Amino acid sequence: MMNEIISSTNITVHPTEESRIHEVDFNNLVFGKKFSDHMFEMKFSEGVWQEPVIKPFGTFEVTPASNVLHYGQAVFEGMKAFYVDENTVNIYRPETHHERFNHSCRRMCIPETSYETFIDALETLIRLDHQWVPKKNGTALYIRPFIFASDNLLAARSSDKFTYQIITSPVGAYYAEGFNPVSLTTPEKYVRAVVGGTGNVKTAGNYAASFLPAQKAKEKGFTQVLWLDAKEQKYIEEVGTMNIHFLIGDTLITPGLNGSILPGVTRRSVIALAKEWGYNVEERKISIDEVFEAYEDGSLKEVFGSGTAAVVSPVGLIEHNGKTIELDREKPGEFAQKCFDEITDIQYGRKEDQFGWVHPVSI
Amino acid sequence: MMNEIISSTNITVHPTEESRIHEVDFNNLVFGKKFSDHMFEMKFSEGVWQEPVIKPFGTFEVTPASNVLHYGQAVFEGMKAFYVDENTVNIYRPETHHERFNHSCRRMCIPETSYETFIDALETLIRLDHQWVPKKNGTALYIRPFIFASDNLLAARSSDKFTYQIITSPVGAYYAEGFNPVSLTTPEKYVRAVVGGTGNVKTAGNYAASFLPAQKAKEKGFTQVLWLDAKEQKYIEEVGTMNIHFLIGDTLITPGLNGSILPGVTRRSVIALAKEWGYNVEERKISIDEVFEAYEDGSLKEVFGSGTAAVVSPVGLIEHNGKTIELDREKPGEFAQKCFDEITDIQYGRKEDQFGWVHPVSI
Repeated sequence: MMNEIISSTNITVHPTEESRIHEVDFNNLVFGKKFSDHMFEMKFSEGVWQEPVIKPFGTFEVTPASNVLHYGQAVFEGMKAFYVDENTVNIYRPETHHERFNHSCRRMCIPETSYETFIDALETLIRLDHQWVPKKNGTALYIRPFIFASDNLLAARSSDKFTYQIITSPVGAYYAEGFNPVSLTTPEKYVRAVVGGTGNVKTAGNYAASFLPAQKAKEKGFTQVLWLDAKEQKYIEEVGTMNIHFLIGDTLITPGLNGSILPGVTRRSVIALAKEWGYNVEERKISIDEVFEAYEDGSLKEVFGSGTAAVVSPVGLIEHNGKTIELDREKPGEFAQKCFDEITDIQYGRKEDQFGWVHPVSI
Repeated sequence: MMNEIISSTNITVHPTEESRIHEVDFNNLVFGKKFSDHMFEMKFSEGVWQEPVIKPFGTFEVTPASNVLHYGQAVFEGMKAFYVDENTVNIYRPETHHERFNHSCRRMCIPETSYETFIDALETLIRLDHQWVPKKNGTALYIRPFIFASDNLLAARSSDKFTYQIITSPVGAYYAEGFNPVSLTTPEKYVRAVVGGTGNVKTAGNYAASFLPAQKAKEKGFTQVLWLDAKEQKYIEEVGTMNIHFLIGDTLITPGLNGSILPGVTRRSVIALAKEWGYNVEERKISIDEVFEAYEDGSLKEVFGSGTAAVVSPVGLIEHNGKTIELDREKPGEFAQKCFDEITDIQYGRKEDQFGWVHPVSI
């Protein structure tokens, strides 16, 4: 089996001698804790990306002077592949994820990578580790491509060496016990990102910066943070590590990509579906005050987040400056549910993929 | 010799069996490239800092899922120690650096560390590696304490495990060929930090975010970026990775610590000296327009950056929206030179340390 796997872009494949798959309890998958047998790796040095390899997942050595430990020059993507049947696994929107990956690279002074190598690496990994793709509805193979600076020099400047890896991990159903609408609070003194910074790219430092505000929101009893813009603390940007959407009347309103909001892939899917279904769709600035006004006049129908992990995440409660919006706290709204069903039906190959979102891999 | 070294806080010391000091050309020291024989390490797990050790500088293993590679949860300090005579090495303001280190930890959800362990680690490292402290005027032992998240879990939340290391590196004279006033340009569309973000702490992501703007400034022929505030692009924040100061008439004006500016240790020293010398000292908002006005009316005497690497770095040229301020491009101003002389005289023990800035270590 292993020896039959051929990569179209000449990735050298070193198959594992012993699979670790027996260590995994597929009925109790914890997010991002167990990793499939193989990983992809390609190094950048002397101005070019070197030979790509796929090899057993494993540790590597770094020195204490490794650039990434000090200056955070690193980008990543988060995406998923879905079990369709015994012959097919669907990767969800790999081209869109790869576009964003390169966009992140450009902002962070990291050399871009080719889509050919990216998709070949994903296909080859999935064929090699197809038994790691969980089969139950709601489960998926999480895919994490990432690149980090690997010079060993303390100078605070862009590295000359980089390491590009892709690891995969079987993940459980996000909504194993049904949707649970989340509760949000606007942070009192923290902001996630500002136009001109790095909020619109998937770089390491954005996440570490959000840990404290997220922790403080949890301590106050809320699930996540509702981020407002840095300049005026007025316009809504994101929710936790997801994008956010508002259904007001028959209009789906999504904060526009202003330069500090992450351009989410699921965000794009939600917007495309809303248009397809005939809703009015607006990508624009939306203030927290406008949301409260719509709530008060009864036109605020639904609020939900969108992201790779949960697909959609309904919002049941929003707290801002002591005032509260309370929506359905037990179940998602009709629109959020419809988005969730449609996207997951496409992901698992249960419904025709009219948008060309899935990339099927024959296993 | 090695066996006589006793740590006051029970740091276990594993001395190297073979020094690498012969690999170093002390006449051609490159910043942050060669590291002394020993390093400090302490790990955090199960809610507490574990036993501290000093051991030979060397590599360690990480997995591709290591938290710091993905989410950038990491903080550091940059400080220096100076050769005084065959019996003494001076560490510059270790308490102030450690205060800021803990301040950074709090913002980044990293557990704080004790000053006792910190200073004991520094003293023990300096005694063990005293031959690595370069002796020439202008040279120093650069000290890099840092802490990074070391969980191996892809969940985007604060790590439960951390690694705290201190490495040291002999560095050459910053001004081996004399002061060279730098040229600055304000970035057209980038900002360094915003109030509510992480600009006032030394965390990894701040540095990666500045690489592209710094590169673009270099491409335009300028040495460094002059950062303006994120909200209005009007008030001056920092220069490159240093703080900035303006001597206007007899007043030293330094941008106030508004929450997005790094509280520099050398910045504090410069302000203390200016007060001691009887200058008017103002820590407040200063707009780029105010600086241009002072230039035009002749009251702008000097502009200079301050930081651990260069102590002071005179500014010879500032470009903003096509307009230019041109000061002395050949040599530093009188005030900047006086600050440089006074601070370095104290660092090398050539002058009485009336401020209690240096921490002498008997070697």
